[in-house]
Amino acid sequence: MTVELICVGTELLLGNIVNTNAAYLAEQCAGLGLSCYYQTVVGDNRERLFATLKTALERSDIVILSGGLGPTQDDLTKETAAAVLGKELREDAHTKELLEEFFKKRGLELTENNWKQAMVPDGAIVVENPNGTAPGIIMEEGGKRVILLPGPPGELIPMFESSIYPYLAGADPAIIYSQTVKLCGIGESKAETMIEDLIAQQGNPTIATYAKIGEVHLRVTARAAGEKEAKKLVKPLVKELKNRFGMNVYTTDEKVTLEQSVVDLLLANGLTVTTAESCTGGLLAAKLVNVPGVSEVFKSGHVTYSNKAKHKLLGVKKSSLDKYGAVSECVAKEMAKGAALAYKADVATAVTGIAGPDGGSEEKPVGLVYIACNVRGKVKVKEFHFSGDRNKIRESSVIAALTLMRQCILEYYSEVAFR
Amino acid sequence: MTVELICVGTELLLGNIVNTNAAYLAEQCAGLGLSCYYQTVVGDNRERLFATLKTALERSDIVILSGGLGPTQDDLTKETAAAVLGKELREDAHTKELLEEFFKKRGLELTENNWKQAMVPDGAIVVENPNGTAPGIIMEEGGKRVILLPGPPGELIPMFESSIYPYLAGADPAIIYSQTVKLCGIGESKAETMIEDLIAQQGNPTIATYAKIGEVHLRVTARAAGEKEAKKLVKPLVKELKNRFGMNVYTTDEKVTLEQSVVDLLLANGLTVTTAESCTGGLLAAKLVNVPGVSEVFKSGHVTYSNKAKHKLLGVKKSSLDKYGAVSECVAKEMAKGAALAYKADVATAVTGIAGPDGGSEEKPVGLVYIACNVRGKVKVKEFHFSGDRNKIRESSVIAALTLMRQCILEYYSEVAFR
Repeated sequence: MTVELICVGTELLLGNIVNTNAAYLAEQCAGLGLSCYYQTVVGDNRERLFATLKTALERSDIVILSGGLGPTQDDLTKETAAAVLGKELREDAHTKELLEEFFKKRGLELTENNWKQAMVPDGAIVVENPNGTAPGIIMEEGGKRVILLPGPPGELIPMFESSIYPYLAGADPAIIYSQTVKLCGIGESKAETMIEDLIAQQGNPTIATYAKIGEVHLRVTARAAGEKEAKKLVKPLVKELKNRFGMNVYTTDEKVTLEQSVVDLLLANGLTVTTAESCTGGLLAAKLVNVPGVSEVFKSGHVTYSNKAKHKLLGVKKSSLDKYGAVSECVAKEMAKGAALAYKADVATAVTGIAGPDGGSEEKPVGLVYIACNVRGKVKVKEFHFSGDRNKIRESSVIAALTLMRQCILEYYSEVAFR
Repeated sequence: MTVELICVGTELLLGNIVNTNAAYLAEQCAGLGLSCYYQTVVGDNRERLFATLKTALERSDIVILSGGLGPTQDDLTKETAAAVLGKELREDAHTKELLEEFFKKRGLELTENNWKQAMVPDGAIVVENPNGTAPGIIMEEGGKRVILLPGPPGELIPMFESSIYPYLAGADPAIIYSQTVKLCGIGESKAETMIEDLIAQQGNPTIATYAKIGEVHLRVTARAAGEKEAKKLVKPLVKELKNRFGMNVYTTDEKVTLEQSVVDLLLANGLTVTTAESCTGGLLAAKLVNVPGVSEVFKSGHVTYSNKAKHKLLGVKKSSLDKYGAVSECVAKEMAKGAALAYKADVATAVTGIAGPDGGSEEKPVGLVYIACNVRGKVKVKEFHFSGDRNKIRESSVIAALTLMRQCILEYYSEVAFR
């Protein structure tokens, strides 16, 4: 079955708000096994909304609209949807009661325009809205379904969870199941080349590639009559991907981030960690701190931006700074060693580089970054050349630092060397 | 002139990512005075993309597409757009060179599929992409314009700013001129209430309110035949806004961020700064380090996540930690004082709070954050109650810390007390 989303609101067209409703509804529909081929945003305009809904109904089985259900003159989603399906509006006594109750409970005055919200299309299913005044509406007509939801996420999400999800779950017997294989330390084109044959022959399940900064995610998706069967289809392909990408796979759990996987490794091996950052200015520490439970392993992090701070707080030799410069393999190494020593951590990761826009030279261009990781005295340094603006270079550096930490910890315990 | 957005990507249809590109592009287009009536999301599917673009071209003057320009087989936006306009693809020598350079510079292997990115539609304007491998494309045909942009925001935004905005600004003979009055330390509804009369009577120029985390931006936009005339329309309204919001205005320069304005204040007064962070884990330091030229004032930052680190690195008293807990007014104060002393800085800002999801209690709920700022021995502490998830609470804390720093420095020098 196919579903299509129409989000109504001038504030979306003006870019005043980000369309998180579309992402939420799309994810829920995918989880329900519904195929979504189109999402549209239109303003509170009768003519354009009418045309958009008409087109949507011609090509999709289910159309979910959000927004434009409020009491003001602007709000005309319900009126327009009823017109498209040729339905009259009539007053719903129960909704009227709930409206009265809603305002009374809050000691608010019920203005005249609010009664509009008790009007529902003939034959529609009315869905209660405990978090607002506009009820949801479900209309069924000629095998098609039109669902109207309020725009505020605080009303839409609870309504979807409690009423619309169960309603839709009964609409399509097929199940969609996805699993994501997350890779680090490998680029998108390289990764795709390694699975060209799998992509060429894909059917059910499918493989989709998503490039993130410093990461590649491979999503395997199967469609089947039941969850068990769908999982059975996904399993061998995930296994094959794990075989091909080996140590580049850091997780096959959708919820696990790269920083989480690093923290898990630290916890599993009873290692404490500290950071010594220059160009990333605290972003690496912040990434680690974003993992709940990190306090077990992370006690302190250090942003040593000046040469003096590198010398005083980390014990980087003045002679190294003079001879090689702050952005050098040697200084990165001394930062990692010094941080481990000064702050008594098993693992210390240091980042020093030129994030730009200024500070680059022919010999040391913007984007040159050295990252060192010290695991109990064993230090590894890598040189990187990142592109993009200051922010992109710093984000790339953080991901590369996490990737290097993971590699160094794994190498320390397994004696396996990475490329 | 009308503009329409088409965002291409299966990950949008599946709800894996939120469509921030649409919000960004819509906001930019609104600023350019272009009317946007439709935004559509379609997957990487030739047939559906072809139909969507065709419809868009029938009803809008300009169509901006984002996504689907990469090297993989999935990526077919360029091929499809060329087909809709009846254009052949040909190899662009300059783009090919840039591609070679891009990979060479990074020491990466250029896989065969990347050459696809050097193919451009006949007669198209090719827009360089310094942050990635897929160039932007502009096609003009029969009075219509089709613009193709790469999907990753880190590539799309810089490209839009440097090339597409000026291109579109030239597309309409009327000039649009905007100036933004940026506020901190005041909420959106408060700010709106203070300019209700101005909003009610707006014409040319208009005022638009944008709520950011911890900030409110007021954008004044005028439309006129020439830039000089437009600026003349904007000037008195900006002056009025500055009068009304006084010290809450931190800049009227679009390019200046809050962190930039803080660093400017530090530079102007010859003050050095350090940070002592707990729940923000380095994000405050990272914000400061993101300002070019910060090295003059920022030497080191400190993430003291554990109580031990707070005691050892900042000299927070063990008795204070025991008596009041790490998240308390007293500890925030001692962190700021201790950091200034230990790291010899004129200004020290400390953040300690509960970012959640765990760690909250009835007495100290998730979202409780104390921020202290010490300017040459004068310390001010503020208590905040932020809402949202871990990330939102940490971001709100960073903005509040910058706002407090600004207030404390201004107060120190002007003897003006803020609310």
